[in-house]
Amino acid sequence: MNERDALRALAVDLPYAGDDAAVVGDTVITTDMLHERTDFPAGTTRYTAGWRAVGASLSDVAAMGAEATAAVAVYADASFDEGDLDRFIAGAVDVCAAVDAEYVGGDLDTHEEFTTASTAIGSVTDAGVVERSGTRPGDALCVTGEWGRSAAAVRLFKRGDEASIERANDLFRFTPRVADGCALAGTATAMMDSSDGLARSLHQLAEASEVGFELDREAVPVHPAVDDVIGGAGEVGEVGGAGEVGGAGEVGGVGGAGEVDGETDERFELAAHFGEDFELVCTVPDEAVADIRRACPGGLVRVGRVVEAAAGVTADGEPLPDRGYTHGDG
Amino acid sequence: MNERDALRALAVDLPYAGDDAAVVGDTVITTDMLHERTDFPAGTTRYTAGWRAVGASLSDVAAMGAEATAAVAVYADASFDEGDLDRFIAGAVDVCAAVDAEYVGGDLDTHEEFTTASTAIGSVTDAGVVERSGTRPGDALCVTGEWGRSAAAVRLFKRGDEASIERANDLFRFTPRVADGCALAGTATAMMDSSDGLARSLHQLAEASEVGFELDREAVPVHPAVDDVIGGAGEVGEVGGAGEVGGAGEVGGVGGAGEVDGETDERFELAAHFGEDFELVCTVPDEAVADIRRACPGGLVRVGRVVEAAAGVTADGEPLPDRGYTHGDG
Repeated sequence: MNERDALRALAVDLPYAGDDAAVVGDTVITTDMLHERTDFPAGTTRYTAGWRAVGASLSDVAAMGAEATAAVAVYADASFDEGDLDRFIAGAVDVCAAVDAEYVGGDLDTHEEFTTASTAIGSVTDAGVVERSGTRPGDALCVTGEWGRSAAAVRLFKRGDEASIERANDLFRFTPRVADGCALAGTATAMMDSSDGLARSLHQLAEASEVGFELDREAVPVHPAVDDVIGGAGEVGEVGGAGEVGGAGEVGGVGGAGEVDGETDERFELAAHFGEDFELVCTVPDEAVADIRRACPGGLVRVGRVVEAAAGVTADGEPLPDRGYTHGDG
Repeated sequence: MNERDALRALAVDLPYAGDDAAVVGDTVITTDMLHERTDFPAGTTRYTAGWRAVGASLSDVAAMGAEATAAVAVYADASFDEGDLDRFIAGAVDVCAAVDAEYVGGDLDTHEEFTTASTAIGSVTDAGVVERSGTRPGDALCVTGEWGRSAAAVRLFKRGDEASIERANDLFRFTPRVADGCALAGTATAMMDSSDGLARSLHQLAEASEVGFELDREAVPVHPAVDDVIGGAGEVGEVGGAGEVGGAGEVGGVGGAGEVDGETDERFELAAHFGEDFELVCTVPDEAVADIRRACPGGLVRVGRVVEAAAGVTADGEPLPDRGYTHGDG
């Protein structure tokens, strides 16, 4: 079984195993493991790693519409450099502070590869949790934030120069959408975070809620950093440049051929398929969008609508492939 | 820095980082990572691994004197065999049920070495939490359970025959002392669990409370399985048998020479230094021991007393070395 199938098998046995976090009484709890090789490209500082590892769990709390309370993390490495550890903890402390939660420690473990396991807990508000399964045709499909920032960061890390790496680190330190999640609780009919990318998130929501989605590609808010890393605009061709028409790019086989169409495709690929943006994907009754948008500090943009399951998940009328970033299978 | 020094550095910065679990409002939270190579000897079933991984975190909740509420775990492996995963989850579910907590899921991750990260949460009772720092000279030193069971299990795993491995798995599935911890809350003046062994636990309590300890070696309750794995009593010499006087044994350089003294030393070594028994080590006002003992289902035995810091940590009048099982440095 790959990770995804195994997760599916897991969901059969455990309540909430298929949701972003488990609910125990008034508490939500969620845990994630990240590894140097798959999750922290060369150049990722320990400060960024601490921020991102703990942020990933806080994002799951946000996706339930709960308030974030606290987080812990295991820091595992081959050796313990005090400076590295301090920086990791500083990142963890700061991302918690950014969402009014408290970083309360964790454990150390000796391990060959730098690995972190973070857990966050949160409190269910009076509005209750938002699961993945509650939306119905007619609801508006909305997202927070700007998409593709992690994809852009990974490309900047690969460039390897100091300025690119600094910018990549900045992009990697996302703000978990806890405030937005809490604002959406009670109004959103279904919600999840976008760890596996927008496309895959839509397929997951569609499966959980037994609906379909019509996505409007142009409406997806794309992070400005994406435009800086795609195509042949003065950049040294790290994704297939002009002449390599149809050449497999680095992310999911998208070729950037220097053409306008190629760039559009690549832009959407990075924004919708790469994943790891930790934004919220949610559905909201159509008439509530305008009001709820004002309550979301991370922004809330309507990117499509919920349709009948039979219509499937489409983008601009074409089937949207259930393809994204999955640890371990590509 | 080794893991222990790093943990010490960590404790300076974070509240409760030096305790068994962090306290956030009325919730305690604790997290641990375990690896196949260091924590699960060959022969450990996935059911036992799930039990033990989650049990280790529940034991930390117990050590705070809190009620266990729920646990989650990350299951990381090179591939996901549905049977393995089911068995791991069954172990996690069952150890939670054993302490009236709920296993509520977790995450999967692709990783070369089988690795788990478990997190447990608990509720602080009206009696409040028990920290490591509250004991004073004159208190009785007490422990729950029987000691050396994990040491015996590790030796049984090494034998490799089916019966030994089955028994080793049984020994590895300890009952987290949550009921005992809750009973002790409000009475115990300091408490921790014994992951690093009795000797090291005493040094940690001594440091946190600024006291010393007098341990009575004979009073330490030793698990019967220890006697089955030590010395030359019909066992094929996996620890130095007769004739290897002073030969380095497998645990911490203790030689079992087939002599009565050698066996006594080895017995104490396995019970007090090997660690990973997940029993509680606590201090209780002398006059309260008899009453509180009756409230502890795991048993509570007086094994010594708290003395002034200047007297250090001694066993039968001799300094007790601060030596135990530490992941990564031996």
